[in-house]
Amino acid sequence: MADAPTAAHPASPKPGKTIDELAAHIGGTVIGDGHRLIFRCRSLEAAGPNDVSFVSNPKYLNLLTSTTAGCVIVDARLEHQKIQRDGKPLNMIQVADAYYGFRQIMLLIHGMRRHPEPMISPLADVAPSAKLGVGCYIGPFVTIGENTMIGDGCVIYPGVQIMADVVMDADCVLYPNVVVYDSCRLGKRVIAQSGAVIGCDGYGFATHNGVHHKIPQIGNVILHDDTEVGANTVIERAAMESTEIDAGTKLGNNVVIGHNCRIGKHNLLVSQVGIAGSASTGNYVVLAGQVGVAGHIHIGDKVRAAAQAGISSDLAPGQDVGGTPAMELKQAKRVYLQLYQLPEIARRLRAAEAALAKLSDTPAAEAPVKS
Amino acid sequence: MADAPTAAHPASPKPGKTIDELAAHIGGTVIGDGHRLIFRCRSLEAAGPNDVSFVSNPKYLNLLTSTTAGCVIVDARLEHQKIQRDGKPLNMIQVADAYYGFRQIMLLIHGMRRHPEPMISPLADVAPSAKLGVGCYIGPFVTIGENTMIGDGCVIYPGVQIMADVVMDADCVLYPNVVVYDSCRLGKRVIAQSGAVIGCDGYGFATHNGVHHKIPQIGNVILHDDTEVGANTVIERAAMESTEIDAGTKLGNNVVIGHNCRIGKHNLLVSQVGIAGSASTGNYVVLAGQVGVAGHIHIGDKVRAAAQAGISSDLAPGQDVGGTPAMELKQAKRVYLQLYQLPEIARRLRAAEAALAKLSDTPAAEAPVKS
Amino acid sequence: MADAPTAAHPASPKPGKTIDELAAHIGGTVIGDGHRLIFRCRSLEAAGPNDVSFVSNPKYLNLLTSTTAGCVIVDARLEHQKIQRDGKPLNMIQVADAYYGFRQIMLLIHGMRRHPEPMISPLADVAPSAKLGVGCYIGPFVTIGENTMIGDGCVIYPGVQIMADVVMDADCVLYPNVVVYDSCRLGKRVIAQSGAVIGCDGYGFATHNGVHHKIPQIGNVILHDDTEVGANTVIERAAMESTEIDAGTKLGNNVVIGHNCRIGKHNLLVSQVGIAGSASTGNYVVLAGQVGVAGHIHIGDKVRAAAQAGISSDLAPGQDVGGTPAMELKQAKRVYLQLYQLPEIARRLRAAEAALAKLSDTPAAEAPVKS
Repeated sequence: MADAPTAAHPASPKPGKTIDELAAHIGGTVIGDGHRLIFRCRSLEAAGPNDVSFVSNPKYLNLLTSTTAGCVIVDARLEHQKIQRDGKPLNMIQVADAYYGFRQIMLLIHGMRRHPEPMISPLADVAPSAKLGVGCYIGPFVTIGENTMIGDGCVIYPGVQIMADVVMDADCVLYPNVVVYDSCRLGKRVIAQSGAVIGCDGYGFATHNGVHHKIPQIGNVILHDDTEVGANTVIERAAMESTEIDAGTKLGNNVVIGHNCRIGKHNLLVSQVGIAGSASTGNYVVLAGQVGVAGHIHIGDKVRAAAQAGISSDLAPGQDVGGTPAMELKQAKRVYLQLYQLPEIARRLRAAEAALAKLSDTPAAEAPVKS
Repeated sequence: MADAPTAAHPASPKPGKTIDELAAHIGGTVIGDGHRLIFRCRSLEAAGPNDVSFVSNPKYLNLLTSTTAGCVIVDARLEHQKIQRDGKPLNMIQVADAYYGFRQIMLLIHGMRRHPEPMISPLADVAPSAKLGVGCYIGPFVTIGENTMIGDGCVIYPGVQIMADVVMDADCVLYPNVVVYDSCRLGKRVIAQSGAVIGCDGYGFATHNGVHHKIPQIGNVILHDDTEVGANTVIERAAMESTEIDAGTKLGNNVVIGHNCRIGKHNLLVSQVGIAGSASTGNYVVLAGQVGVAGHIHIGDKVRAAAQAGISSDLAPGQDVGGTPAMELKQAKRVYLQLYQLPEIARRLRAAEAALAKLSDTPAAEAPVKS
Repeated sequence: MADAPTAAHPASPKPGKTIDELAAHIGGTVIGDGHRLIFRCRSLEAAGPNDVSFVSNPKYLNLLTSTTAGCVIVDARLEHQKIQRDGKPLNMIQVADAYYGFRQIMLLIHGMRRHPEPMISPLADVAPSAKLGVGCYIGPFVTIGENTMIGDGCVIYPGVQIMADVVMDADCVLYPNVVVYDSCRLGKRVIAQSGAVIGCDGYGFATHNGVHHKIPQIGNVILHDDTEVGANTVIERAAMESTEIDAGTKLGNNVVIGHNCRIGKHNLLVSQVGIAGSASTGNYVVLAGQVGVAGHIHIGDKVRAAAQAGISSDLAPGQDVGGTPAMELKQAKRVYLQLYQLPEIARRLRAAEAALAKLSDTPAAEAPVKS
């Protein structure tokens, strides 16, 4: 591995930009030398004199005194003006939202992944009745089923399998080995990372006389505009009607969305979240990693749940929750802090009981709590 | 998305059935107009005057007063007789098990997914020594390894990879991009949803002098008749002998079954369940979402575990459990209810200690519990 | 299924070895008949008179009195000398590390999986600019992107998709349907089980004016020598620089490693573990099934975490932890034992309060704790 480069991307082939140009692009204020040329975006630790980096998480502010970056994007609300590095001021661009500003600069300098040029691979198997929009890339070993419609500008990487009767709008990107089952609907600019499975059968069985009888799953999945589905994430089709992921929602990896769920707009459901069938969420819900949600419940707008939380009943809008069963986050923090003390609480209760017994001049009536 | 249909399936091309015919099919009793024609199964919210729906979960009984369904299948044990809708009685079919009855009607009207007609795609790669039964569909970009035997009527969707020496019985369905490793055995009517991996190497390493040495995994996986494996679920092959999933058991999505597990008959292991190596379950075990099971333990017949439970020791048959570590469900509910009160318990204990100290006329001996 | 063999592998075609030869191979001591011929490795329950088995977990020591194995490998530290079976002593090989010794014997008798002979399938799609080493197997329906370099002796099973600019060193094995995104680096002898996704986009979004804007993920993934990636496991590429898995580390199935994580050497991260972005681990860390790790934290060398633990802050080297939030394992065991008693603790506290009130001759001031 010694001679393998550690950074994935070579220096941008584009000409560099000055710090002044970058600042103008994102509406920021330059502190330091605005004429310096910048060629690449890199991490604070790795950036050199012609690279730009950023800091947004306060945990990493201390890196500002050691970074060799040519420029750092920082939040305007933080007071960075006095930062010296080797006796010289660090070049910075102050902007209201450093994270978003840096994202804009990454787009400007590096852009998103460059997909293959439009073409239909002769190694793809496209059904005669399927319709492909203009400007699509259809990779090798892709199948596209009967009556399926692919919108303009879609990028279908190798090994993707799209079954019959699917309708996909423009500019979707399906990475290698994604599967889309029959009759599903994808809006504009939907992205699915590799291994994602969209529209497999819902987990529906009617148990009768000791046998679990499979229920036909005649519904579908609808992914609205600008949704993203993580790698190896699974979205079950509805038993009837549709499992829906509304516009702008982003699912992490290995997430499972049960049949007939309705996920609202602009949700962030992080990796390994599991949502049981027929549950629904409002808009701007954030569920951290490994959160579980029971079936048939509703999570209100802007609810945020801490990692591993177990949500088993409806949540009103705006709540921050944690723990299992999920409770208000402040209370959860108190509870889980106290949890550590539980053996000590038991011991102290026994001591209190003994003192009471002595005061009462009667033997302690209770058996001690096991410890 | 505006013009995309929200329901996946078009109206059934089959001629409709009267409510009387549907009731006869499932042995139910008609309340209302038995002559009405029904064409489709739909949800209570979406059903129109020629659609049939059902209600089984009491949570949704209130929808009966607003549904526009032409007919609703209901449990005989519930008292629906008096339901009025717009001043007219709702047409219903009462039957002992509405969920199963509705499933029978879905089968009658819509049927299971129609698979492609039997054929061997010229784009599949079937080893010369492999044997295929009659009436199989083998899709494009499928590989079938040396000496593998595929039973009659199997449906192997595109992108499925089946390694060497596999034996698969009749009428199995493997959805796109499923992988079956070498030497595994599948019974009759086994279904595997997309991305399922059957028989990958068990997680077996012998750590010696600081190195984790891979242990050859020379066993296999046996999936018995009528098992179903969810999307992106992984079943490890045995180090020696077999990892077995017994007849009728249904695995959800992103489940992991460790090597040498033996899962009993008619289990329901819901999405994201993880079972460590060499664990076993009896028959009719139900593990809800995200449950974890430690290695080398046995879970008795008919045990049911609530979502996210962590099971680390043997469980006797018939237990309902919850929590981590898993405890009897009733106790778990008491414990987790009380958990919320834990900071308050600590506060009250401090108060009792102070009162005791005052009574004893001595200072409180104990440092207060941190809160 | 009746006529399907239950064991995956036929008897080894190689000639048998005597127990003496096996003992010499692993530096063990023979107890019993060293001349007996052994042909296969099998489990204690299934082994016959010409099979060798092993016992290492004390839980299974009792099987020694019933096994019909021709030979059993046992730990030298255990006292097995007196074991009789049907009145005759059991043939055993005592060795310092029975598990590792048996692994060596499995290698000797059965070997690792035999991969297909080197060849480039005419059904693979290899970019003109890609470079393949000598002695590679490239299966059907594999794609290899532009400028990708595959080292000598690699085995690329059917359906694997490798994007552009990947560099893979010698002797890697990618099982069917693995995906490697652009620009990733794999060291020597890396193994990826089916469905693994290496280098998909990190979960990075800058939320601005109510929209989650995708951040270009311009970094990559580096898998160092001798790493293994489980089935359907996902490793996100870095936003910038590299997500790294250091040498000798083994990941289970359905694991998720977030972007910019740095996982140390010789870690064991068991199935369904999830590690959020920018977290790092030292060497020899062991995380059991379903453990969750928060982002931006560091887990020290040799930390071991029990199943389902939730780790949300840095951990010093050498700690054993459990529970959520993770605490020292001994304390976690005390806490979770006491947890079961929590309703009883609440009841006893109420009793103590009542007794206190009586002693004080004043009414109990506190409302009872809800139970």
